[in-house]
Amino acid sequence: MPQYKVPLRDIRFLMNEVFDYPSHYKSMPNGVDATPDLVEHILKECARYCEQVLAPLNQKGDQDGCELKDGKVTTPRGFKDAYDQYVAGGWQGLTHPADFGGQGLPISLGMVRAEMMGTANWSFSMYPGLSLGAMNTLQVHASEEQKRTYLTPLTEGRWMGTMCLTEPQCGTDLGQVATKAIPQADGTYKLTGTKIFISAGDHDLTENIVHIVLARLPDAPKGTRGISLFLVPKYLPDGNGGVGPFNHVVCSALEHKMGIRGSATAVLNFEESTGFLVGTVNKGLECMFTFMNTARIGTAVQGVAAAELSYQGALAYSKDRRSMRSLSGAKEPNQVADALHHHADVRRMLLTQKAIAEGGRAMLYSAAMLADKMMVGILKNDEKERLYWDDKLGFFTPILKGVLTELGFECANLGMQVFGGHGYIQEHGMEQIVRDARIATLYEGTTGIQALDLLGRKVLLLTRGKAVREFTSTIMKLCTRNATHRDMYPFIWTLGKLCAQWNWLTTRLMLSARKDRDMIGSAAVDYLMYAGYVSLAYNWALMAEKSFEKLEKGGAETPEFYRAKIQTAEFYFERLLPRAQAHAEGMLSPSKSVMQLPIDHFTFD
Amino acid sequence: MPQYKVPLRDIRFLMNEVFDYPSHYKSMPNGVDATPDLVEHILKECARYCEQVLAPLNQKGDQDGCELKDGKVTTPRGFKDAYDQYVAGGWQGLTHPADFGGQGLPISLGMVRAEMMGTANWSFSMYPGLSLGAMNTLQVHASEEQKRTYLTPLTEGRWMGTMCLTEPQCGTDLGQVATKAIPQADGTYKLTGTKIFISAGDHDLTENIVHIVLARLPDAPKGTRGISLFLVPKYLPDGNGGVGPFNHVVCSALEHKMGIRGSATAVLNFEESTGFLVGTVNKGLECMFTFMNTARIGTAVQGVAAAELSYQGALAYSKDRRSMRSLSGAKEPNQVADALHHHADVRRMLLTQKAIAEGGRAMLYSAAMLADKMMVGILKNDEKERLYWDDKLGFFTPILKGVLTELGFECANLGMQVFGGHGYIQEHGMEQIVRDARIATLYEGTTGIQALDLLGRKVLLLTRGKAVREFTSTIMKLCTRNATHRDMYPFIWTLGKLCAQWNWLTTRLMLSARKDRDMIGSAAVDYLMYAGYVSLAYNWALMAEKSFEKLEKGGAETPEFYRAKIQTAEFYFERLLPRAQAHAEGMLSPSKSVMQLPIDHFTFD
Repeated sequence: MPQYKVPLRDIRFLMNEVFDYPSHYKSMPNGVDATPDLVEHILKECARYCEQVLAPLNQKGDQDGCELKDGKVTTPRGFKDAYDQYVAGGWQGLTHPADFGGQGLPISLGMVRAEMMGTANWSFSMYPGLSLGAMNTLQVHASEEQKRTYLTPLTEGRWMGTMCLTEPQCGTDLGQVATKAIPQADGTYKLTGTKIFISAGDHDLTENIVHIVLARLPDAPKGTRGISLFLVPKYLPDGNGGVGPFNHVVCSALEHKMGIRGSATAVLNFEESTGFLVGTVNKGLECMFTFMNTARIGTAVQGVAAAELSYQGALAYSKDRRSMRSLSGAKEPNQVADALHHHADVRRMLLTQKAIAEGGRAMLYSAAMLADKMMVGILKNDEKERLYWDDKLGFFTPILKGVLTELGFECANLGMQVFGGHGYIQEHGMEQIVRDARIATLYEGTTGIQALDLLGRKVLLLTRGKAVREFTSTIMKLCTRNATHRDMYPFIWTLGKLCAQWNWLTTRLMLSARKDRDMIGSAAVDYLMYAGYVSLAYNWALMAEKSFEKLEKGGAETPEFYRAKIQTAEFYFERLLPRAQAHAEGMLSPSKSVMQLPIDHFTFD
Repeated sequence: MPQYKVPLRDIRFLMNEVFDYPSHYKSMPNGVDATPDLVEHILKECARYCEQVLAPLNQKGDQDGCELKDGKVTTPRGFKDAYDQYVAGGWQGLTHPADFGGQGLPISLGMVRAEMMGTANWSFSMYPGLSLGAMNTLQVHASEEQKRTYLTPLTEGRWMGTMCLTEPQCGTDLGQVATKAIPQADGTYKLTGTKIFISAGDHDLTENIVHIVLARLPDAPKGTRGISLFLVPKYLPDGNGGVGPFNHVVCSALEHKMGIRGSATAVLNFEESTGFLVGTVNKGLECMFTFMNTARIGTAVQGVAAAELSYQGALAYSKDRRSMRSLSGAKEPNQVADALHHHADVRRMLLTQKAIAEGGRAMLYSAAMLADKMMVGILKNDEKERLYWDDKLGFFTPILKGVLTELGFECANLGMQVFGGHGYIQEHGMEQIVRDARIATLYEGTTGIQALDLLGRKVLLLTRGKAVREFTSTIMKLCTRNATHRDMYPFIWTLGKLCAQWNWLTTRLMLSARKDRDMIGSAAVDYLMYAGYVSLAYNWALMAEKSFEKLEKGGAETPEFYRAKIQTAEFYFERLLPRAQAHAEGMLSPSKSVMQLPIDHFTFD
């Protein structure tokens, strides 16, 4: 397994230089405590924990996997101890209210923590990650009593939570949810049904697990409008902060998965388990979706994590392994052969990983500022403010989730490729990154679902193209303010053309879709990928802009850091951005070539 | 695991209609026996064996894996029995000379067999596949005595062979091979050294294993010019067709791999093992490379196999699983939701798989005719004829190997994607296809190596662009003969432009490379992929041309088969071929953006 080193220099560059988090934090009620000193302390401590505790468990976790025996789930060796350290460090409550034992810091800091933990050990990071999803939902939708009983132990990390949506017959299509919730005389419900693919659904890390469950009342309307949200603890609380009787949430199986094998993916049977309604009857999906954007961005993080970890592994190997001579002449004539990194094609692979990892990180850190503002709306109980920022965030969410998970998987594969045949052997850990990363384009909405969310909903239905006009005018501002900067010219010239093209493509699709009702569906993934490549280009131009500024001002401690940023931006624009044009051409084709072939004619005997 | 059904209709379409194998066979001395009746019999029998015997072992083979215990290697349950049936069927000798127990049929029939077997169970098919490599090498380079002793049991399948090239310190860079061969007084050699990644390196399928080993004599020149080829049997022959004493070829470990887990990948220690020189001293690499083209095309088959198997699995699931409603209105209003295949994006994925599987198959079947002609040169002992056709084949080899393995992996991933989260679970077998397919871009020369072979060697160094001019003029012939065919117009218009562009790109690169010595290396993979997309386009246009011909003539039994071909060609040209332009743009960038960043500036603390 590559030895993970947290890229703190890069993280600081984004937080302190490109996006000016210090000013951003000062502007928020829950950000004033996030002083540069405190943030620096958190970054260092988190990096230490990730490098020294989590990273060494990553490969072992894959080898051990999780085990279900006599009704008990065991996580890989070392996970429990690592989790205890996580709890002792107070990490779970970092961004949750002090009222329930948290530190109340901005949610963007939670994302940075998630990135470090996820890169060090994605399987491990899923346990607290899912719990954060449950905590967020309870924080907004639970009653005060529910919060007192559940949110405090969850925030402290003594208990963990899950999100129970999927059932055997439905994942994306939650209108098919069939788990029953029967009202009881005491105001509680009895839940019966089977949930599958429940991450952290059962384990030995905490004494209790709090399931957030979608279920249907007996008289509920069909489809998505008849789904309610319930809180179903594995053990009922004893009223004194401890646990009482078993609540018949039975883990009947663990899935055998391609990767993330240290993460327990459970089949849970609810057998007349006692549940407590969260929020309003039949409004369960709406409650669940309050934090859909942050949950999806949490998955986008996995793309950057895979790219970063695989990049670090491949880079180290490219310095270590020697093979053949460079085409432009021997570079290390005294050695038996040149190191891999002298070969242009190996550099192409490494730079692709670097461009995606660092560009994707910039996209995440930019979006996290919007999530911070949305959370302020929640803290202030200001629904209008929350929705305003959630809408802004909502435009970027499918781009982040859809594109960064696809490109993260590509980068994980490039890392294997740099290793040649050795990449295919488990020992080096490079193939594990591929297997772990592969889930990211599937869960939290597949790439196809993200694409429909972006083009069908966010761009056309909700804003009739306004979301694109707004983002491209932000990009154009960058172009305008650099109009006289000679070195920025190649970037802004290309970006200017892309802004015009993106709006034009959007309008073309909107018009075509009036007559061609399958146009949106057939164009969506091309549109999503196009949006992703333009967004990456914008973020690389932002980083180049800041780097030129630093170099021109003089006195930078590490000018080579800034030069590397500019050169990586050049690589991105010359070598990866051209892909956007293939997507532009693909998406404009009428849906006919996708829809015309009758399903019975896909194969012939 | 998807239930594999051999696409016989598609195979017959290519063999009998598009490429007219019957006439091709009639024109060759070893083809006259391959009458349409015999070929049809072979296809059916092979399909039966693959569907009924090999396919059911595919998932089990992955689960069981191979085991090394007390020095003995055990293959997965059922493999030995399946192999015995293979031997009893006489399959191993299908295309090898009757003198040694074979049937002497054209090698293209062997490729069709390899495709069926490889799609049914790639791991299993590697055992006889590697043995064929050893047999080919011996057939051309071994002495008559060596052939009598080894080639007969190999052809009969009683023994198997391997190819031992890779060592811990080198794979691609065979000049670093260090295994020692010490000459003995009796004319034999004692070999000592370690070979890794030896597929079928040890197993329980046959009583003996014949290793073809690269090694170095004590006084040999350094590098690739000092490597000789040896035949090293696991057990020395007893002189009566049976086996005698153990020859100290020790399997010290089996690799733990991402996939192809039913295939034993051995670390072999040669401990003063007796070896017999094959061919001339220090000419080992040349001997090894006689069949490099066919070996690499054998790996290209894996890309088509992965695409086909994953396509079959995803197609079945898309008819079975229901989720959401089609964007153009409910298609199955009486069902709880529409079947997946009604969704445009699912169709986009299925059609991508179909276009790659069927288009890739066409590319293979076209190249196999060149391999047939090369083999005629070998049979006639006509070195000039052999080299002429080997050169022709050599242009297509890197395109087939490089591009079809990359696209096959993409298709395997699309198949998982159609399954959503269920694709990530081992039970359905879709993730196994991804893991198995992943090796194909690594072994037999990575994609980067194929790309350099195409652009650096085959196109620029050996032919100064002539290979491209020849192939594009073949494509232009198709364009010319369809110039007045209205329905072919979209295909030939695009192909005409691509032919001009391909030649222009080649010239541009040739000129740039004079000044920019890393240009070739930095452009190579983009050039390779570009070549692949154009080749696929040509093959789809060929299939469309034949399909129009059949439909226009009337009386076709299954007009819908031909219409499906034309519609898949339309999909390919509209949705996948645009990718070629992204590669065209990427390859023309100077190497600066790839080469300029100093290796120490790839990361910063």
